[in-house]
Amino acid sequence: MGTKTSDIEPPRLGEPYLLTPGPLTTSYAVKEAMLRDWGSWDNEFREMTHKMRTQLLALLGPGKSEYDCVPIQGSGSYCVEAMLGSFVPKDGKVLVLANGAYGLRAAQTMECLGRAYKLLNKGDYLPPRGDEVAAILAEDPAITHVLIIHCETSSGILNPVEEIADVVHAAGRKVLIDSMSAFGAVPLDVERTKYTAMVSSANKCIEGVPGFGFVIARTDELEAAKGNSHSLSLDVYAQWAAMEKTGQWRFTPPTHVVAAFLVALDAHEKEGSVAGRGARYARNRDVMVEGMRDLGFETLLADRWLSPIIVTFFCPASPAFDFHKFYELMRDRGFIIYPGKLTVVDSFRIGCIGQMDEHVMRKVVAAAAQALAEMGVNDASPPQAALDERKKLAA
Amino acid sequence: MGTKTSDIEPPRLGEPYLLTPGPLTTSYAVKEAMLRDWGSWDNEFREMTHKMRTQLLALLGPGKSEYDCVPIQGSGSYCVEAMLGSFVPKDGKVLVLANGAYGLRAAQTMECLGRAYKLLNKGDYLPPRGDEVAAILAEDPAITHVLIIHCETSSGILNPVEEIADVVHAAGRKVLIDSMSAFGAVPLDVERTKYTAMVSSANKCIEGVPGFGFVIARTDELEAAKGNSHSLSLDVYAQWAAMEKTGQWRFTPPTHVVAAFLVALDAHEKEGSVAGRGARYARNRDVMVEGMRDLGFETLLADRWLSPIIVTFFCPASPAFDFHKFYELMRDRGFIIYPGKLTVVDSFRIGCIGQMDEHVMRKVVAAAAQALAEMGVNDASPPQAALDERKKLAA
Ligand SMILES: Cc1ncc(COP(=O)(O)O)c(C=O)c1O
Ligand SMILES: Cc1ncc(COP(=O)(O)O)c(C=O)c1O
Repeated sequence: MGTKTSDIEPPRLGEPYLLTPGPLTTSYAVKEAMLRDWGSWDNEFREMTHKMRTQLLALLGPGKSEYDCVPIQGSGSYCVEAMLGSFVPKDGKVLVLANGAYGLRAAQTMECLGRAYKLLNKGDYLPPRGDEVAAILAEDPAITHVLIIHCETSSGILNPVEEIADVVHAAGRKVLIDSMSAFGAVPLDVERTKYTAMVSSANKCIEGVPGFGFVIARTDELEAAKGNSHSLSLDVYAQWAAMEKTGQWRFTPPTHVVAAFLVALDAHEKEGSVAGRGARYARNRDVMVEGMRDLGFETLLADRWLSPIIVTFFCPASPAFDFHKFYELMRDRGFIIYPGKLTVVDSFRIGCIGQMDEHVMRKVVAAAAQALAEMGVNDASPPQAALDERKKLAA
Repeated sequence: MGTKTSDIEPPRLGEPYLLTPGPLTTSYAVKEAMLRDWGSWDNEFREMTHKMRTQLLALLGPGKSEYDCVPIQGSGSYCVEAMLGSFVPKDGKVLVLANGAYGLRAAQTMECLGRAYKLLNKGDYLPPRGDEVAAILAEDPAITHVLIIHCETSSGILNPVEEIADVVHAAGRKVLIDSMSAFGAVPLDVERTKYTAMVSSANKCIEGVPGFGFVIARTDELEAAKGNSHSLSLDVYAQWAAMEKTGQWRFTPPTHVVAAFLVALDAHEKEGSVAGRGARYARNRDVMVEGMRDLGFETLLADRWLSPIIVTFFCPASPAFDFHKFYELMRDRGFIIYPGKLTVVDSFRIGCIGQMDEHVMRKVVAAAAQALAEMGVNDASPPQAALDERKKLAA
């Protein structure tokens, strides 16, 4: 258990590191698993599907016996939509807690489904807190479910899931979690926090390649989900029932992506499961954030809200700084970074997940230093507006 | 142009041939393209997406200028649902022409969407014909769209798309086509048959690996599709508009599957595009069907309805024949075949698509002969009930 940095090797085909929150840099072994073809009806592939579901459930720990795992073809957003459409009855109402792009997308999904919801929009990053959620639930008895974004990847904030789930359960409502970018690296104890359902996808902290996601849900809630869905393809109940009956996916599965994911799951286990994976990512973050701060960059969030998934930095105030130039200079050095998603001030993001360790993160910082020098940016500190913005979080 | 059998090589990792209509046996080069990671936001991947859309449109020939191509994450059924939900307005009505599992699934999709439809259910395989469609349209002016399954893969029948499309257009209604298993190998002239939209997927006649599909639609119909969709993820308009604006997929794309598909598209072009690919598949079918008939097997369909995609055979009447045993014996010899989907009599299917040529098909027939011998089946001819069933088609 713990960080096995020696297992991490650079991309073999010389492609840049993806410092992005998925697709991310995967191991060669994960990709090599895609070098053959499988029949989706064949026993061999059914066994692979079974193994995958079992290994994913194992990540829940002792509380797993009440849960089952349902893979869903498509991207992560498909899984969020599938979860909302399947577990929220047509006459249900969802409180969507948003502090960034993915929370807002969930609200947009509810809008599209034409089902009732209330949006608590905290802006670009401020975390929704237990007391305000409790107040809304007390006020609106029609709310049946609360959707929490675990790590809001658009700022990188780790939202206080347990705190919120506690008040939701105390009010007798149900918890749905978008743990897309956190599952597999940030612990979430299902004995303590008995959520109704949760989603994540293949190409995040388990370090597979993109092509499907999965729902982890209470078995009784899966049974109750029958007939709720607005969509045939995104019907979690139907997918689950068919898989239980036949061992197959209802529709053609992304066989190669599943094969890659199985290798990724084994590596995750070998690294020490959630604790081991989380430790490496946290170390990646710490080394990278410290180095970037040494260069004068400032993080959007105070340390207590920083996730080990991705970190938002303010763009420097210096007129010599240009994000597109910075992106290209980093890319030339073998690192693909990510643009920011803040609406108020300019920012960019650096991911900590994927096949990277602290040695790679030191090279990222060195590359950023070179890029600043090449652009003629002597001072990487952000504009006053950014710091003012950040003060809101402390308030 | 024409059949380049020399390019076909057996599966390198020794896995069985997939005589199934997707996932299918792909070339090693296609799979090798998945050995690196791409950032989905990066320019390189945007260019790959652009190239893919352009190459797919090129398959339409001269009429392509009025059309655009929109890839959709997920399986083929997702694309059918996306097409129905996006191009049929909420107050529209679809005539679904079904003669097998995929037509029925389209009807089930309409049911799930809660939109109006009429089902013409021809049973296991009888083709819907122009005159009966014309009569239904004349009778029901509320019908706005007609869904045609190009090759109904559950029997392997090639439905008379042009004949039906002609009467639909003559009646002033619109044509939607599920060409999942035919696109890329069976020509469909878009100048002659100006359909509103059509869907197919990566893992069929273009010979990519599974993970996404695509909609090809008239640009004016794409524009008109805004706001129709019942689903955020499956909104063809939104996917198209975002892709036109940013060059990116709206949500995380299956990057590796896309990379593999690009290699598959180049190979498709090199083989002589739709004509060349179709010629190889037709030869596969002819050699395989002839050989199987020599063994005493009978096809469900008369030659004029046989597609070059997949062929349904009746199970022999002999009590010594057992499909599961036959499946395993074929598998032991390196061939994965497919169970049948007929409801009235027992059947199985053998696919003609994927990285296989007539030499492989001869080996398939030889393996079938050995399997029959091992089971002690001396006579592979079907029960009388099967032949009676088949007579319906002649009637
Ligand atoms: C928290 C969260 N939710 C949803 C998504 C959407 O996933 P996808 O892009 O695979 O649709 C993401 C993607 O990064 C995410 O981080
Ligand atoms: C004609 C047709 N329609 C729809 C589908 C469904 O595609 P998928 O299994 O990828 O969802 C298939 C699959 O073979 C098909 O052949």
